Amino acid sequence: MKFCPNCASPVTLTVPPADNRPRYVCPACSAIHYQNPRIVTGTVCTWGERILLCRRAIEPRYGHWTLPAGFMEIGETVGAGAIRETIEEAGARIELQDLYSMIDVVHAEQVHVFYRARMLGPELDPGPESLEARLFDEQDIPWDELAFKTVISTLRWFVADRREGHFGLHTDSIVHQPKAGKLSPRS
Amino acid sequence: MKFCPNCASPVTLTVPPADNRPRYVCPACSAIHYQNPRIVTGTVCTWGERILLCRRAIEPRYGHWTLPAGFMEIGETVGAGAIRETIEEAGARIELQDLYSMIDVVHAEQVHVFYRARMLGPELDPGPESLEARLFDEQDIPWDELAFKTVISTLRWFVADRREGHFGLHTDSIVHQPKAGKLSPRS
Repeated sequence: MKFCPNCASPVTLTVPPADNRPRYVCPACSAIHYQNPRIVTGTVCTWGERILLCRRAIEPRYGHWTLPAGFMEIGETVGAGAIRETIEEAGARIELQDLYSMIDVVHAEQVHVFYRARMLGPELDPGPESLEARLFDEQDIPWDELAFKTVISTLRWFVADRREGHFGLHTDSIVHQPKAGKLSPRS
Repeated sequence: MKFCPNCASPVTLTVPPADNRPRYVCPACSAIHYQNPRIVTGTVCTWGERILLCRRAIEPRYGHWTLPAGFMEIGETVGAGAIRETIEEAGARIELQDLYSMIDVVHAEQVHVFYRARMLGPELDPGPESLEARLFDEQDIPWDELAFKTVISTLRWFVADRREGHFGLHTDSIVHQPKAGKLSPRS
């Protein structure tokens, strides 16, 4: 952020009174512009024993397989966002089940949330963000071609839980360590 | 948003190519400025049987009681944010337990997340956002003076679960209906 979205003056990065961290503040109109992590919401959908994956038609990770997911929007619930993304990316009709995983992706300033879901029919109609959408038997899951760590973790938990016959809630955090010899922004 | 934070030109509200909803777009530099819901993260802390509440020293809901909670910040996990807010608002030393509730607050463009936590000592030291911090026996919880619906729901679940001897994950959504005779922004 370089300019105030409210009045177009150049902003400064400073700690506001009664705050404890730097924010973008406008010296002209006094607006404080907070920035916060975003929620990515999606589903682990099944039709019978098969699991729904989409192959990405967009960067990052173009061509890799993913669970249907995307940014939660203003005006919707986390669950409604998961259903919307599943429709947009796979064209699947689904019934949402329980919240299944929540994973912090600190370096990306995101929190990824996945719900279990049941498909109401086997029809798929991938949207413009997907090269294809396909139902995979467990032994055919393309583990080496998955797009994101949060997708790998959630799928691993899912297949393990399904074998055990019990689906719990899973949480995890992905925190990238600064490379050796490279200072992190706060060090 | 009136002006582009990147180049200070006036933005327009328009549906970008390959998108399906209006965004703030800069005609000068082509930047698209997405806006997304924010996460509020906090704790249900206990010291023995008593539950920690803070009385708000800030608006909204000045003077009302709340669970310690606040906006998740860039660079932290949801859990780390819950611990930080508990330290800032109550001065409590805690050990985080499981994720306990996740509630959509659609009209506020927020998702509220609470963890259970165990206090490591009874000492409290409320920060500038709290008039006081106090440990309450269940029968003394000021139900009529609680600040937010998500706090009321989470505390109700907590005291019921504790009686049952089992803490599950709870989810809910608060969606305000437009008033009768008043059109919603999308209708």
